[in-house]
Amino acid sequence: MGKTTRKNAVVGQSGGPTAVINQSLVGVIETVAQYGEIDRLFGARYGVRGIIENNFIELNGLDADRLERVADTPCAALGSTRDKVDEEYCRKIFNAFAANDVRYFFYIGGNDSADTARTVSEMADEADYELRVFHIPKTIDNDLRVTDHCPGYGSAARFVTHAIVGDGMDNASLPGIKVDVIMGRNAGWLTASSMLARRDEDDAPHLIYVPEAPLSEEQFVSDVAEVYGRLGRCLVVVSEGIVDEYGKSWNEQIVRMAHGAEVERDGHGNLQLSGSGMLGDCIANFAKTEVAARFGKKKLRVRADTFGYLQRSYPDSVSPVDRDEARLAGRKAVEYAADGQPSGSVAFRRTGNGDNYAIECFRAELQDVARITKPLPSKYINDAGNNITEEFRDYVAPLIGELPVIGKL
Amino acid sequence: MGKTTRKNAVVGQSGGPTAVINQSLVGVIETVAQYGEIDRLFGARYGVRGIIENNFIELNGLDADRLERVADTPCAALGSTRDKVDEEYCRKIFNAFAANDVRYFFYIGGNDSADTARTVSEMADEADYELRVFHIPKTIDNDLRVTDHCPGYGSAARFVTHAIVGDGMDNASLPGIKVDVIMGRNAGWLTASSMLARRDEDDAPHLIYVPEAPLSEEQFVSDVAEVYGRLGRCLVVVSEGIVDEYGKSWNEQIVRMAHGAEVERDGHGNLQLSGSGMLGDCIANFAKTEVAARFGKKKLRVRADTFGYLQRSYPDSVSPVDRDEARLAGRKAVEYAADGQPSGSVAFRRTGNGDNYAIECFRAELQDVARITKPLPSKYINDAGNNITEEFRDYVAPLIGELPVIGKL
Repeated sequence: MGKTTRKNAVVGQSGGPTAVINQSLVGVIETVAQYGEIDRLFGARYGVRGIIENNFIELNGLDADRLERVADTPCAALGSTRDKVDEEYCRKIFNAFAANDVRYFFYIGGNDSADTARTVSEMADEADYELRVFHIPKTIDNDLRVTDHCPGYGSAARFVTHAIVGDGMDNASLPGIKVDVIMGRNAGWLTASSMLARRDEDDAPHLIYVPEAPLSEEQFVSDVAEVYGRLGRCLVVVSEGIVDEYGKSWNEQIVRMAHGAEVERDGHGNLQLSGSGMLGDCIANFAKTEVAARFGKKKLRVRADTFGYLQRSYPDSVSPVDRDEARLAGRKAVEYAADGQPSGSVAFRRTGNGDNYAIECFRAELQDVARITKPLPSKYINDAGNNITEEFRDYVAPLIGELPVIGKL
Repeated sequence: MGKTTRKNAVVGQSGGPTAVINQSLVGVIETVAQYGEIDRLFGARYGVRGIIENNFIELNGLDADRLERVADTPCAALGSTRDKVDEEYCRKIFNAFAANDVRYFFYIGGNDSADTARTVSEMADEADYELRVFHIPKTIDNDLRVTDHCPGYGSAARFVTHAIVGDGMDNASLPGIKVDVIMGRNAGWLTASSMLARRDEDDAPHLIYVPEAPLSEEQFVSDVAEVYGRLGRCLVVVSEGIVDEYGKSWNEQIVRMAHGAEVERDGHGNLQLSGSGMLGDCIANFAKTEVAARFGKKKLRVRADTFGYLQRSYPDSVSPVDRDEARLAGRKAVEYAADGQPSGSVAFRRTGNGDNYAIECFRAELQDVARITKPLPSKYINDAGNNITEEFRDYVAPLIGELPVIGKL
């Protein structure tokens, strides 16, 4: 990345990928190409790590067909990172920008990335260096503040909905107790989307547990036993982040029992939740013993699946709405830059719903999006804390595109 | 189910469901409606269990729209069963048929179902009772003899292919070692289909292990270390049925270590493999320790996903070819009946490949399909036993429909 006499820009991708994160990237690339102010656009490999390690790809002059193929490919085409970015790390980012005439930074990520964007932007202000930083929201967790919803969420929710329709039918074919574990460390938005799979009262999912509603072992057993007693089957959707009545993570306690002090944490101090079937297996074994005991049975058919990384990467089931909005978010970031707007985060406001679903974009302040996440509001959780209210259907249905067909004899 | 003066028919679904098993069911229902010989068509709930327990749904006079919705819904609309069917069970089935003027039995299932069909057909012959039994092939395992391939396989293979494309991109975004566990107790057909995800040499999957090629722990560690050392990442696809150099199941040994003698077996004496993440987790933990040691690293990013029941039930990613062929298989079974052909199994013969892919149907003998399964031929497994040959691409590609788009920067 050499010095130029004009203004350069950097784009990067951060955190857990989504199925449409490259739509936002291509939205940036194609809009920068239309905007004469920016001389060269550099893609940082592996997020901010590429910036401090001078690992870039030049993104000018790529042909439209290739860009379209990249846009349709899931996960971060530039590579991503889980690096914990502190003040010192931000200083290195800023220094790299200042040394290379970078005047625009487009960063596609979640709340941590918004915080990085905010810090780097403030450092530039303090140094009187002209730099504008635009955060482009991305997370399957849908837990960013200000915006109505996040690019990446709709496709993950579509995957979960279809998966629960299919698995619910599987569990009706060969009845038993089924536990499905869904991503979402602190927020239940994705887990809650599974409610779209339910059309008739007896359809799966029969129980939905989100991190926002504490769940005791006693309640779990009694809920499952009630459904199983009534229907002869029960499909339970569980967020990987569920907590017990004392606010302690089920997953963390299970992992700690298995591995002792040797638990794996990421740079943010978070326990590794995904990429393991342990939570689902433990809940299934627990149900096999405890629910069976309630019915005086020696054994019950209990199975668990952990949907894992497919939720954020499966390419054959992308929500068309989500795909288009992710592209739009990337385009808008560059338009805000071109309009001379200050640093900020692209946000969506819903202007119509149901059949008239529509959004408009606006620029949110980085500090309002950074760090703190947005939990699933309590109005979407039923009083018993074991299901999602119908009101949530209106919120989430437009985001996933067409609902699955269900026919019964 | 009352007595009639005319000829009745029964249709049933058996074993693990597929995403297109209802296409075959609807193929039977719509073709029976065109065939005046058959008076009433009864659907057996939960496979042969419905026959011996007199649990039926009448399937005459259903409207076409509803049938089409049922056809597009994954998993067994009639319900399925894992009952082990012995001679005595078959006798009960035959007695139920004889008592109710059932002259045709259409049974959608795998090799066990073909064996049930054969036994019941032979009992009818011995009793001089006119009964014709048609087996309609169905299995995501693709392990039936005689037929070129099985309805249900193409959609499962499409799911696996797209899942590995997505997960491979995820693992390129945030590099590490990834283990994905695929269904297939004895046959590696479904696991092998993951090779379609690989376009460029460095693409996932980097290693593919099928039950037909024994795998020692030493080979696993050395294979993964080689790929990881070369690319800085490694995605491994493993069949749930892999065996070690002594022919012993990895999964069985792992489950036995965890649960001792308390292992769960189905009516066929098979160990429960699906519905648990244990194999993937154990392989991941093993890689975390052993591969890390080779590189003198304290920790490596290692994750595992077990694709589980989504492989056979995910409704938003069905192969159009598979969908149409599953319907055709159901229709053909009734046509064979209408033509006065003897009992048999519907089979496919491939008459064109690649862009000219085409099949024709023929009637196979039940005894040639029953019981014994068809392993993945050794010509499709590379010499090192850790990957699938390019020759397999020609076999499997036409079965999944359009391949995923992949774009890179």
